[in-house]
Amino acid sequence: MKVGFIGLGAMGSAMASNLLAAGHAVTVWNRSAAATEPLASLGAKVARTADRAAQGEVLCSMLANDQAVREVFLDGGLLDAMDRGTVHVNHATISVALAQQLAEEHAKRGLAYVAAPVFGRPDMAAAAKLNILVAGQSAAIERVRPLLEAMGSKLWPLGDAPERANVAKIAGNFMLAAAIESMAEATALTRAHGVSAANFLEVMTNTLFAAPAYQGYGKLIAEQRFKPAGFALPLGLKDVELALTAGSAARVPLPFAGVLRDSLLEALAADDAELDWSALALVAARRAHLDERG
Amino acid sequence: MKVGFIGLGAMGSAMASNLLAAGHAVTVWNRSAAATEPLASLGAKVARTADRAAQGEVLCSMLANDQAVREVFLDGGLLDAMDRGTVHVNHATISVALAQQLAEEHAKRGLAYVAAPVFGRPDMAAAAKLNILVAGQSAAIERVRPLLEAMGSKLWPLGDAPERANVAKIAGNFMLAAAIESMAEATALTRAHGVSAANFLEVMTNTLFAAPAYQGYGKLIAEQRFKPAGFALPLGLKDVELALTAGSAARVPLPFAGVLRDSLLEALAADDAELDWSALALVAARRAHLDERG
Amino acid sequence: MKVGFIGLGAMGSAMASNLLAAGHAVTVWNRSAAATEPLASLGAKVARTADRAAQGEVLCSMLANDQAVREVFLDGGLLDAMDRGTVHVNHATISVALAQQLAEEHAKRGLAYVAAPVFGRPDMAAAAKLNILVAGQSAAIERVRPLLEAMGSKLWPLGDAPERANVAKIAGNFMLAAAIESMAEATALTRAHGVSAANFLEVMTNTLFAAPAYQGYGKLIAEQRFKPAGFALPLGLKDVELALTAGSAARVPLPFAGVLRDSLLEALAADDAELDWSALALVAARRAHLDERG
Amino acid sequence: MKVGFIGLGAMGSAMASNLLAAGHAVTVWNRSAAATEPLASLGAKVARTADRAAQGEVLCSMLANDQAVREVFLDGGLLDAMDRGTVHVNHATISVALAQQLAEEHAKRGLAYVAAPVFGRPDMAAAAKLNILVAGQSAAIERVRPLLEAMGSKLWPLGDAPERANVAKIAGNFMLAAAIESMAEATALTRAHGVSAANFLEVMTNTLFAAPAYQGYGKLIAEQRFKPAGFALPLGLKDVELALTAGSAARVPLPFAGVLRDSLLEALAADDAELDWSALALVAARRAHLDERG
Repeated sequence: MKVGFIGLGAMGSAMASNLLAAGHAVTVWNRSAAATEPLASLGAKVARTADRAAQGEVLCSMLANDQAVREVFLDGGLLDAMDRGTVHVNHATISVALAQQLAEEHAKRGLAYVAAPVFGRPDMAAAAKLNILVAGQSAAIERVRPLLEAMGSKLWPLGDAPERANVAKIAGNFMLAAAIESMAEATALTRAHGVSAANFLEVMTNTLFAAPAYQGYGKLIAEQRFKPAGFALPLGLKDVELALTAGSAARVPLPFAGVLRDSLLEALAADDAELDWSALALVAARRAHLDERG
Repeated sequence: MKVGFIGLGAMGSAMASNLLAAGHAVTVWNRSAAATEPLASLGAKVARTADRAAQGEVLCSMLANDQAVREVFLDGGLLDAMDRGTVHVNHATISVALAQQLAEEHAKRGLAYVAAPVFGRPDMAAAAKLNILVAGQSAAIERVRPLLEAMGSKLWPLGDAPERANVAKIAGNFMLAAAIESMAEATALTRAHGVSAANFLEVMTNTLFAAPAYQGYGKLIAEQRFKPAGFALPLGLKDVELALTAGSAARVPLPFAGVLRDSLLEALAADDAELDWSALALVAARRAHLDERG
Repeated sequence: MKVGFIGLGAMGSAMASNLLAAGHAVTVWNRSAAATEPLASLGAKVARTADRAAQGEVLCSMLANDQAVREVFLDGGLLDAMDRGTVHVNHATISVALAQQLAEEHAKRGLAYVAAPVFGRPDMAAAAKLNILVAGQSAAIERVRPLLEAMGSKLWPLGDAPERANVAKIAGNFMLAAAIESMAEATALTRAHGVSAANFLEVMTNTLFAAPAYQGYGKLIAEQRFKPAGFALPLGLKDVELALTAGSAARVPLPFAGVLRDSLLEALAADDAELDWSALALVAARRAHLDERG
Repeated sequence: MKVGFIGLGAMGSAMASNLLAAGHAVTVWNRSAAATEPLASLGAKVARTADRAAQGEVLCSMLANDQAVREVFLDGGLLDAMDRGTVHVNHATISVALAQQLAEEHAKRGLAYVAAPVFGRPDMAAAAKLNILVAGQSAAIERVRPLLEAMGSKLWPLGDAPERANVAKIAGNFMLAAAIESMAEATALTRAHGVSAANFLEVMTNTLFAAPAYQGYGKLIAEQRFKPAGFALPLGLKDVELALTAGSAARVPLPFAGVLRDSLLEALAADDAELDWSALALVAARRAHLDERG
């Protein structure tokens, strides 16, 4: 299939390379051009502008946040430049409000729109093992299914309204943050009573909580290894604020999310912006002044 | 081995039956005698008083809470009645403060004391698949190891000080409560935006959160099936208050536990005491008045 | 002095009438023209457009929120239409971020800018008893001092940077919300133990909390009289979110504000949008299911 | 009247001296005898034991907490030693549960029991300006009214059930803690945006919050003067935990109290136990790392 791909961060690059590996004709574009080179060497065509990348049947995008999506697609005019009938597959984690607005803007212009946010880090993207949440018109989803299957190990359909995939992604990231905070508080409690984080988390992550989320972040917390960040604290705050905003719009109180927001702000106030969000464990330990204890 | 077992609720009965199955000579006692009958039919000797059950090399106990342990062992004088050198294996989920006090009271009397709280519900106890946290003097632990191995699939040693096993159990139950609340809030958010709890939790509990804790409680939440309770709300409140009390004693703030306490109280104020603690999902939905929506 | 006044809600109308009473030549404008009539009958000149109201030495504005201020002054082009040297006195409760942006936009165009948000309800505005927070260049403040003194009983200078007056106003409204919530929770607690809200609040608001904030809202809570709203719940949510956003921008955790946000959302989810924000007491009582008790 | 007074801390001593000043015959007792001397010099008779102090018509007590009250009256046997018909006026801030138990224990022994906790610090006690909450049988209250009027400026009757006075006192102290926390968070927010705590609180405590609670603690926060403590952090934690326990017993969620508990624990974890509870402002500033900012 003739596909464009824009947004070539660690995630986007890995995803685009899997489209190439599956034999699709991929044209890539990225704001800073350097990121296009590895893909070019794998056979991608490099577009000089975003709209030149958008001339295939399908355009996939993996941009960083609401602002980047707005700048490229709305303010930057890319939507206006696309041919009627093109399918846009948006992989970004964006707000529910923007997802709704994009659905309308695409419809107005006769463009098909599929929201397809993903769970998984760059290594899983590279291994084509992403879990992909999908929402949009079923005809459009069917057209892009081969692409999604080339990038992920499993598709999770969530209905016609694209924002449903986004709210599920936001709620999932909130659950991740809550899992980290619960380990942060639990280990602060056990440490204060003489049980190390490593010993305690070994039990938990091999029994009741034997799941990737707990095992991955539990290991970082046990080893107090918060650098380099797999997912940095400011991104965590962004995602928790997406949950709070979606909750506010729909009148849903989210007390855990409120606690998470404060803990993330506290981490950032300590100038820990470059740390992984599992550094919420540092915040919990600091609140209890554990490292100053005997 | 000659073993006594007191406290024959669903958990204790299943555990004692596995001791019998492993060929140990077990004498049982329970406050209400009816619970002893099934074990008698499996070969247990039934003691008329607690101290008659405590005349073997080892006494295991699985009582409901601090109050029951205090009544039997301290106020009821059982500790005073036991022979020097006997090992007491306490499986109950009790407070850190009581655990510390019991360690002292046993030591004073020349009794060995092992804390061995467990993770697992009655069906896992019946299948001898409990995860058993163990703390106490290593010589005492070695003596009772065959018993523990007859009841559980895995032992998790946590050092000499018995209260360490208890704080780990308390912190683990806090993590369970937090997992439930995070699903409760996340599904309130997705439901308000059109994604059912079942659809959302199917994704999460098969991917990042593919762990027993999330799959078990996630299923109950997806199906809104809170009766009969596997673990009733008042027990959940008791355990969260154990965490808060342990935190208070050691000056450890636990903001998630504070939220959990309020949500559990709200559930109980609604007269939902007989429901499973996964009914925290009802509280989150009620706060958002979801069931009154279109 | 020749003054324009735009934004003639209950507050703005009362403030403008005091400028008239003090002998100033006031030209008024309001989006919906009906609000101009009472002022016209008091001697105000009615402008057909916002920029015609902005042709005096000073322009006062009292608009509802960020969006209204943005629409009139930035998107609507009013700033571009004003003569260099004019002083704009902005009485609205707006975000810190917009306050900073406005300061820059005025400076660029050679306009003086004074932030002057107020504490006080319409009856205090009518009686010229507002407390006015003031920040901006001192020369500009001196020029408009006679106007401010005609509208308020006291000016509270907070320095050169206009946003300082806004953050103080936001923090003050947060304190009001917190005072209401603390009465809401305290009376839920006393009611559950047999002491009525009226009896309890009579003690508190005549002793330690003998202040306008507590006496005013305490009376509404004691009498469960939440309609008509002096300050409706959605406005309360808006202001608490201004505090949270200002906190987020400056990395300041605000746990009480997080609780307030959730309680206000819960009130709104119950379709109580038309109630006064003292109806936080309803939320606290509902959480404890007090009205279903004996 | 012939009155005993036990518990001669700063509050009790000042209260007893006012009974002497009003012409009553006062016999005093205190665990550590040194505290009795100043009262002896004012004319008090000094008892060698608590029960010798309890031989008048009325016994007033002002002990530190539940534990002290339990030790003297229940475990220490003072209730058993008192003559039928004696009125015990208990001024201590105790738990609702103990208040209920004491009411029963007095009734069993034919003793009258009046709960009379107070609002006011030692200087107000010395000036006989306390606000006294009173609950108990009205006949008993009438008998002790002259004593209460000698110690306070105003009595606040709250009904027959003694625990009602205690729950009101607990709820009132919770409101004080919430007022401090709200100033702590509000000033963290304004400071981060360039408005000093002193400037901001000057506005608030002279306008909407012109009440003793805000003016007193606001001054300490503005001046960052947390030593010597008027009311130390551990006492604050004790009182917030009384509120939480009373809430738990009656199934009343108290989210603000949960936040307060954590902030107080955080202060104590920082080894600030000797500071006044207005040092909650330190905690809020530390969370935002304000003092490390430029």
